[in-house]
Amino acid sequence: MPLPEKALIAKIRDRVKSRRVHPAIVIAGIGDDCGVLRLPTGHDSLVTTDFSLEGIHFRRDWHAPEVVGHCCLTRGLSDIAAMGGEPVAAFLSLALPRSLPQSWVNRFIRGLTNLAEKYGVLLAGGDTAESPDGVLADIVVVGSVPRGEAILRSGARAGDRVYVSGTLGASAAALAQLRLQSKRHSSPRSFARQFRPEPRIELGRVLREKGLVTAMIDLSDGLSTDLAHICEESEVGAEIDSRAIPRAGVGKPTRKVSLEFALHGGEDYELLFTAPRERRVPPQIAGVTITQIGHITPRRKVFLLSEHGPGVELTAKGWEHFRS
Amino acid sequence: MPLPEKALIAKIRDRVKSRRVHPAIVIAGIGDDCGVLRLPTGHDSLVTTDFSLEGIHFRRDWHAPEVVGHCCLTRGLSDIAAMGGEPVAAFLSLALPRSLPQSWVNRFIRGLTNLAEKYGVLLAGGDTAESPDGVLADIVVVGSVPRGEAILRSGARAGDRVYVSGTLGASAAALAQLRLQSKRHSSPRSFARQFRPEPRIELGRVLREKGLVTAMIDLSDGLSTDLAHICEESEVGAEIDSRAIPRAGVGKPTRKVSLEFALHGGEDYELLFTAPRERRVPPQIAGVTITQIGHITPRRKVFLLSEHGPGVELTAKGWEHFRS
Repeated sequence: MPLPEKALIAKIRDRVKSRRVHPAIVIAGIGDDCGVLRLPTGHDSLVTTDFSLEGIHFRRDWHAPEVVGHCCLTRGLSDIAAMGGEPVAAFLSLALPRSLPQSWVNRFIRGLTNLAEKYGVLLAGGDTAESPDGVLADIVVVGSVPRGEAILRSGARAGDRVYVSGTLGASAAALAQLRLQSKRHSSPRSFARQFRPEPRIELGRVLREKGLVTAMIDLSDGLSTDLAHICEESEVGAEIDSRAIPRAGVGKPTRKVSLEFALHGGEDYELLFTAPRERRVPPQIAGVTITQIGHITPRRKVFLLSEHGPGVELTAKGWEHFRS
Repeated sequence: MPLPEKALIAKIRDRVKSRRVHPAIVIAGIGDDCGVLRLPTGHDSLVTTDFSLEGIHFRRDWHAPEVVGHCCLTRGLSDIAAMGGEPVAAFLSLALPRSLPQSWVNRFIRGLTNLAEKYGVLLAGGDTAESPDGVLADIVVVGSVPRGEAILRSGARAGDRVYVSGTLGASAAALAQLRLQSKRHSSPRSFARQFRPEPRIELGRVLREKGLVTAMIDLSDGLSTDLAHICEESEVGAEIDSRAIPRAGVGKPTRKVSLEFALHGGEDYELLFTAPRERRVPPQIAGVTITQIGHITPRRKVFLLSEHGPGVELTAKGWEHFRS
């Protein structure tokens, strides 16, 4: 292993010294058996955990180490955003193969801690191990939300409207282009969206504060899959208008991605939510465009309406991660 | 992957239905973006995360699946015990290779949830993925402790006495025997301690309630390594009497394990703690034997005293996990 536990901990400690955090609420962190967190009185805790596995979620020949670190934490932060919460602390379990260059680890940590600092999240612990094969990371993010106000997936009701933030499909389109080109270490600049997704923390918080939203999820697996999660947990169905789905523009000159990418591509980290029909949802919240794409129905199926006639059933096509 | 996310979640849900848990404090669990936990008012949160990686922490040809599941959760529960906390909820990230038999997963989950039920811990979420190679598990345990009462590693002071619970070295001795015999799927009965370690939750809680303890850690990496952690965090040293170390008895007829196993063998999951000299520590607490093995010194080194003359410096020999 290129970096024994002690050195890794020292390195992370140095990185988080300059952090903008809520110091009052992290009592003990790296260097003890557990992280000890003190949440504000009257708040519930949010806990989420997400793998980033080499060969499954990323490829070392495609993704720069900073990008892997950034995306690793984004997965967790995005789940906190989807509950309308504030992230507080992160815990990183990291297993590294013996052959991994030290510089890779340094750059991975830089990518992760830069994003952590941006959102005032303290890296408060974790675990390290030797990996039998490939880089294995699991990120835990703990957040807080005022008591009883977490936005669940299960609150959508028939008649609610379905909204999505930002635009969809850029990540999947960039990935498809990478596959085609077999481009090595593509510049983060050419695929800014794929490589530096922003968790929608502020949007999630504002939506919760406005009391607008009945159910919410982050788009990590793709619209078709994540909408199915909301419908399943809420015991409802939905009708989505294919023409309303905000497709991302990629390339120069900019072209809109295909509907397939916007429907089934993962890792957009936008928010998908439902709101009662009678509530007005602004077209932009916290600097992010909000688009109505359909509505919730009592029948427990999801239909995709198009200009070419009646709706077809939309089946969830789970996000296919990278394969090495 | 033998068990897609949905089926795995359904299976875990069924298993935890019969749970003995604190239902008031888990608001949402499996099936949402985050677990939502409501801790008792006036409590701090404890968070710990621990890998269980095939080829590093266990071997499928040596360890029954139930044992891997049991040990996976024990790692996390033991960290909660070492803070004097109560475990509340667990989150499991589990990556499985495609070729893994379904029965292995079922038995792994059984081992984990049986232990969870015993300690009233709800499995409240996690992540699933395909593994590029071998079974990869990361367990997160969230616990609670009355505000400001978590027992840290950093509180040991010169003059404090050093104590350990139970007996040490059985796990390492059993492992050495396995290596020697290359025994396949050894019966849990022949290596009960190695294969079903009990987290010392009750002992940790009682020690905190009695206000006896200045610093505490669980013995996951071995006495020499874990004592070094306490000394480092507390900025002190220690003198340990080799004759006082409670060595485990193994085999039939029972023989005490060698001092090496008791000093450096990991995965005992006993508690190592310090208490002020003037406080009386009972010889048995919560049904577990407590032994004084030395004392804390101001000089920042750890010495091992023996019958053969002056002390030698004790260097931390980190627990060597299994290698495939």
